[in-house]
Amino acid sequence: MKRIAVLTSGGDAPGMNAAIRAVVRKAIYEGMEVFGINYGYAGMVAGDIFPLASRGVGGKISQGGTFLYSARFPEFAELEGQLAGIEQLKKHGIEGVVVIGGDGSYHGAMRLTEHGFPAIGLPGTIDNDIVGTDYTIGFDTAVTTALEAIDKIRDTSSSHKRTFIVEVMGRHAGDIALWAGIGAGADEILIPEQDFDVNELVASIKNGYKNGKNHNIIVLAEGVMTGAELAEKIKAAGDDSDLRVSTLGHIQRGGTPTARDRVLASWMGARAVELLKEGRGGLAVGIHNEKLVESPILGTAEEGALFSLDNGKIVVNNPHKANLDLYKLNKEISS
Amino acid sequence: MKRIAVLTSGGDAPGMNAAIRAVVRKAIYEGMEVFGINYGYAGMVAGDIFPLASRGVGGKISQGGTFLYSARFPEFAELEGQLAGIEQLKKHGIEGVVVIGGDGSYHGAMRLTEHGFPAIGLPGTIDNDIVGTDYTIGFDTAVTTALEAIDKIRDTSSSHKRTFIVEVMGRHAGDIALWAGIGAGADEILIPEQDFDVNELVASIKNGYKNGKNHNIIVLAEGVMTGAELAEKIKAAGDDSDLRVSTLGHIQRGGTPTARDRVLASWMGARAVELLKEGRGGLAVGIHNEKLVESPILGTAEEGALFSLDNGKIVVNNPHKANLDLYKLNKEISS
Amino acid sequence: MKRIAVLTSGGDAPGMNAAIRAVVRKAIYEGMEVFGINYGYAGMVAGDIFPLASRGVGGKISQGGTFLYSARFPEFAELEGQLAGIEQLKKHGIEGVVVIGGDGSYHGAMRLTEHGFPAIGLPGTIDNDIVGTDYTIGFDTAVTTALEAIDKIRDTSSSHKRTFIVEVMGRHAGDIALWAGIGAGADEILIPEQDFDVNELVASIKNGYKNGKNHNIIVLAEGVMTGAELAEKIKAAGDDSDLRVSTLGHIQRGGTPTARDRVLASWMGARAVELLKEGRGGLAVGIHNEKLVESPILGTAEEGALFSLDNGKIVVNNPHKANLDLYKLNKEISS
Amino acid sequence: MKRIAVLTSGGDAPGMNAAIRAVVRKAIYEGMEVFGINYGYAGMVAGDIFPLASRGVGGKISQGGTFLYSARFPEFAELEGQLAGIEQLKKHGIEGVVVIGGDGSYHGAMRLTEHGFPAIGLPGTIDNDIVGTDYTIGFDTAVTTALEAIDKIRDTSSSHKRTFIVEVMGRHAGDIALWAGIGAGADEILIPEQDFDVNELVASIKNGYKNGKNHNIIVLAEGVMTGAELAEKIKAAGDDSDLRVSTLGHIQRGGTPTARDRVLASWMGARAVELLKEGRGGLAVGIHNEKLVESPILGTAEEGALFSLDNGKIVVNNPHKANLDLYKLNKEISS
Repeated sequence: MKRIAVLTSGGDAPGMNAAIRAVVRKAIYEGMEVFGINYGYAGMVAGDIFPLASRGVGGKISQGGTFLYSARFPEFAELEGQLAGIEQLKKHGIEGVVVIGGDGSYHGAMRLTEHGFPAIGLPGTIDNDIVGTDYTIGFDTAVTTALEAIDKIRDTSSSHKRTFIVEVMGRHAGDIALWAGIGAGADEILIPEQDFDVNELVASIKNGYKNGKNHNIIVLAEGVMTGAELAEKIKAAGDDSDLRVSTLGHIQRGGTPTARDRVLASWMGARAVELLKEGRGGLAVGIHNEKLVESPILGTAEEGALFSLDNGKIVVNNPHKANLDLYKLNKEISS
Repeated sequence: MKRIAVLTSGGDAPGMNAAIRAVVRKAIYEGMEVFGINYGYAGMVAGDIFPLASRGVGGKISQGGTFLYSARFPEFAELEGQLAGIEQLKKHGIEGVVVIGGDGSYHGAMRLTEHGFPAIGLPGTIDNDIVGTDYTIGFDTAVTTALEAIDKIRDTSSSHKRTFIVEVMGRHAGDIALWAGIGAGADEILIPEQDFDVNELVASIKNGYKNGKNHNIIVLAEGVMTGAELAEKIKAAGDDSDLRVSTLGHIQRGGTPTARDRVLASWMGARAVELLKEGRGGLAVGIHNEKLVESPILGTAEEGALFSLDNGKIVVNNPHKANLDLYKLNKEISS
Repeated sequence: MKRIAVLTSGGDAPGMNAAIRAVVRKAIYEGMEVFGINYGYAGMVAGDIFPLASRGVGGKISQGGTFLYSARFPEFAELEGQLAGIEQLKKHGIEGVVVIGGDGSYHGAMRLTEHGFPAIGLPGTIDNDIVGTDYTIGFDTAVTTALEAIDKIRDTSSSHKRTFIVEVMGRHAGDIALWAGIGAGADEILIPEQDFDVNELVASIKNGYKNGKNHNIIVLAEGVMTGAELAEKIKAAGDDSDLRVSTLGHIQRGGTPTARDRVLASWMGARAVELLKEGRGGLAVGIHNEKLVESPILGTAEEGALFSLDNGKIVVNNPHKANLDLYKLNKEISS
Repeated sequence: MKRIAVLTSGGDAPGMNAAIRAVVRKAIYEGMEVFGINYGYAGMVAGDIFPLASRGVGGKISQGGTFLYSARFPEFAELEGQLAGIEQLKKHGIEGVVVIGGDGSYHGAMRLTEHGFPAIGLPGTIDNDIVGTDYTIGFDTAVTTALEAIDKIRDTSSSHKRTFIVEVMGRHAGDIALWAGIGAGADEILIPEQDFDVNELVASIKNGYKNGKNHNIIVLAEGVMTGAELAEKIKAAGDDSDLRVSTLGHIQRGGTPTARDRVLASWMGARAVELLKEGRGGLAVGIHNEKLVESPILGTAEEGALFSLDNGKIVVNNPHKANLDLYKLNKEISS
């Protein structure tokens, strides 16, 4: 393989630029040429494709977001979209593609591979909800941003004896809430993977103040409900504290990536190039037990594939689960 | 004067701890004893008063919030509340008080002085809306927090060609919006001190994208309207961009204070002690043209007083104004 | 076991306070009493021991350093020191101890256990050089601090086309250099675990500038040599670039711990209490493959012990090794 | 004036990019064309000159360093160098120049103006040692970086009861030391503008520990002596504490600029364009008492000029002075 391309797709995440840089530099190191594709699959279809040089990614490792831009492009789920994209790849002499993004992006990579263009998926999302990897690129940075925000909220909350609901991102996963919550010393952490009883929650808030706490911080994963909804429920269940809601929002998607995210992204980016060099595609790179691994994107659970087809419907073979040991841990040390 | 006390009142602000520390250390340096009063005027009335030692404020300079806690206590506007507070001060042998907080806190300081207990006000609020000072304690930190948040939002906003409304704090003042907006290179800054035309705003957004911008960031002071309200107006006026709202919220009130806030707070705290030492009260400390100044809290405009009484109603003599040169500046360099 | 104590020993590390907090909270959760010992083994011998309450560790999770102070105390390697310490433990009714620190601290924990006082070691050091764990408490924060510093140095280095040697900590281990170096996009990383050729290094610097680089950043682990020594070698080998040295120094030991360090420290602290509750001692807690593990401190390699005795000399059974895959990675993507 | 250029000269400083951006945007707003000159006066002479567009400075406001690069170029002090530079300016049709840098850069601007090319100087340096302005671009960021470093050092220093000498930058000025020192709650601040007695210093360290301090932090401006030299003097004068030296070094020159530096740089950049638009040159922009001011670079003290000629030698009319009120303040509140 002499010429490959790289794109980012879906929601952006800190560390995507570090991954792109590693793809470019490693490919050049291996004697390949690299092209960037702007705006994900949309840009592929539109032919928004351009050569990338080693110097062109200088200084990008520390920048949040993705300098290749990202976009959602549902048309790529259709054959027509895929063929249009492939036509553009052929026009530029591109033989393989690295796709950085979430689950949806992986499916596009699978299709390209099926059409004879090996494509490798890298897990780029802050939510840490992608199968086949212990950690996604961007997760550590999002946790860090959320933690710094909660640290700030704790200052003001302690000054006024206030209860705060801090709503963090994570889609259907509670990982950001769990890590940022434990890190911040949250009094309660609510995640979609674990039910909670609003009456117990209110009792725990009251107990906290009775036992001399100066604040009560509840970290809420967006996958449970919104902060406003929770506030309503808490009040309805008898909370009489000075209650505020803070929704951290989009700050969690940006920012200079942490050391961990930069290293992870660099490592995964280089691995993707190695796989393409061997002519392999249809694989997703992950980190598992501190080592890089790759899994077939589509196949049977026995093969270790991330997804399988069940009567034409995509099924996740081994869905991501939050670390409930950490959930339990916080219960025990937040007293 | 041999024994003074210090309290924080109203909304908390980063740097209040640095001011308390300076009051304590400077008072001890001057041979005085210092007491802390918890929870502002409420704690004064309740007798929540305790001695503070030099070592007791060690390490506090870098902490956000206020370790003396704060509270709103409207009862102190009444004579009864004031007398109850004074009784407690007498009980502890306290002869003068430093009050760190906003406008409301100043009025309490005025009353104490009238009752024979000299009290000095220090401007502690993130909003920068206090008369008699160019900058308030906490403002620089709030601007810094808002700026860092907008920097992060710009990352994700550029990656997706999005328009973002970022709502920042400031009550009726646009200062946080102005400084954070210019610092972040915002495309538009909306402040209560200056009208805007929603049609022009929408035209400017469209123009931006036409001219090759990858994002459009509107920094909105909460004194204008909420982010959600503005979003509705913009959409109604024909905006067709991918529009999001981010309300930064309470993170702006916390966090370790910036160098500037720590220096300002330390300087003002020490000055308050000097004034009490001279037996002076009813004054507010400010910074004007890089020098510390003090102004009578109540009196005539001619005397340089911050407030005057007009038929028993408190009137602000020389209300704070946002720096409209900065507003104009951003208009010119955001193209 | 109804009463335990916790101490920190050796060099301090960010996250030690988070670990102490978890020990305290978890012990109280399990119905135990907890005592803090100031200044490590020195304080144990001196009887500097005091009860810790749940509220007493509030707000500590975000603070760098150790609020129990630390000290080196070689006298504890002698039987006399150990017996003096045990006498103090008995006086306070303490039945088990959690020791947070480095290798030397583990040996003290082993001795206490042998004398009938179960003690558990937690790996607290920035250097990541402790056996029995993939990561130590404080490592991620030190990497983060080093990375932020190198990011800053890159700014000024690019502005002036300069070569920078940045000397980072790590004692005999290259881990901080590796992670911070990859994260910063360093041009070269020099670690004690891997030889380097100064002529190749100089050739690579020259090549970089010839290929259009605006700077050249060499991250140097202190275990290799000092920055000044390397500068001399490079100049002697013919480097003609504008070369500067920056030794990051003690900033790497402080700072608010990262999310990852806070979570790791909390998790390990709680686990130490569980082990003591079961009456177990002489163990060190580690994290391996994302799960907590515990290993005998002293014993045979076959038992999985960290250290063994060879003719009375302590031997490390399975010394920590730097991840050379990361070393190779940087070689390939720094071009 | 229809076409201007901008360059950065001397040591780089955070905020230079923000100033360049403002020059570019404001010039375009005023209907002018703007060119960038790489590597300061060296690039001017070498013809390293290129057009800058509005989009070309997008995202630069938050970046440290200078994307136009900087260099020292003593040859520009000679007529020959000046004429060579002017030839290049003429070739590109450039009629006026904005020079961002330190004192030396101002002199070049003066020469260009004398030769008929109006040039405006902006104070870009971290040292805050430029005449004609209360603050320089980059100073607030350098103070912030130094403060964050000292905060970290305090953590580790408190954990071990250590004395730390922290050497900060500032050339001949003590401003960085003063502001960072007060902000960090330093025990002692040593600046070139104020003598100190090493015996008093040692007595104060001893006193501190006797009075229960857990650390002693001495912030030392590089203009006094090096940290190593001070350590030697202190030891010779009888200090028996655990003394360490940390030289912060080049991290102080980099980093994303603070809000204050970004606003100041933006404001000054726009003002420089206004002055050029009026055909004015030979002026330096400053901020004084919160307002922008401009002063003749060369002339008599009576005219308010920054420098005058005394028998052909350049004399500073009104040299920068450190704020000794702040020095005194720290003496009083560091007890």
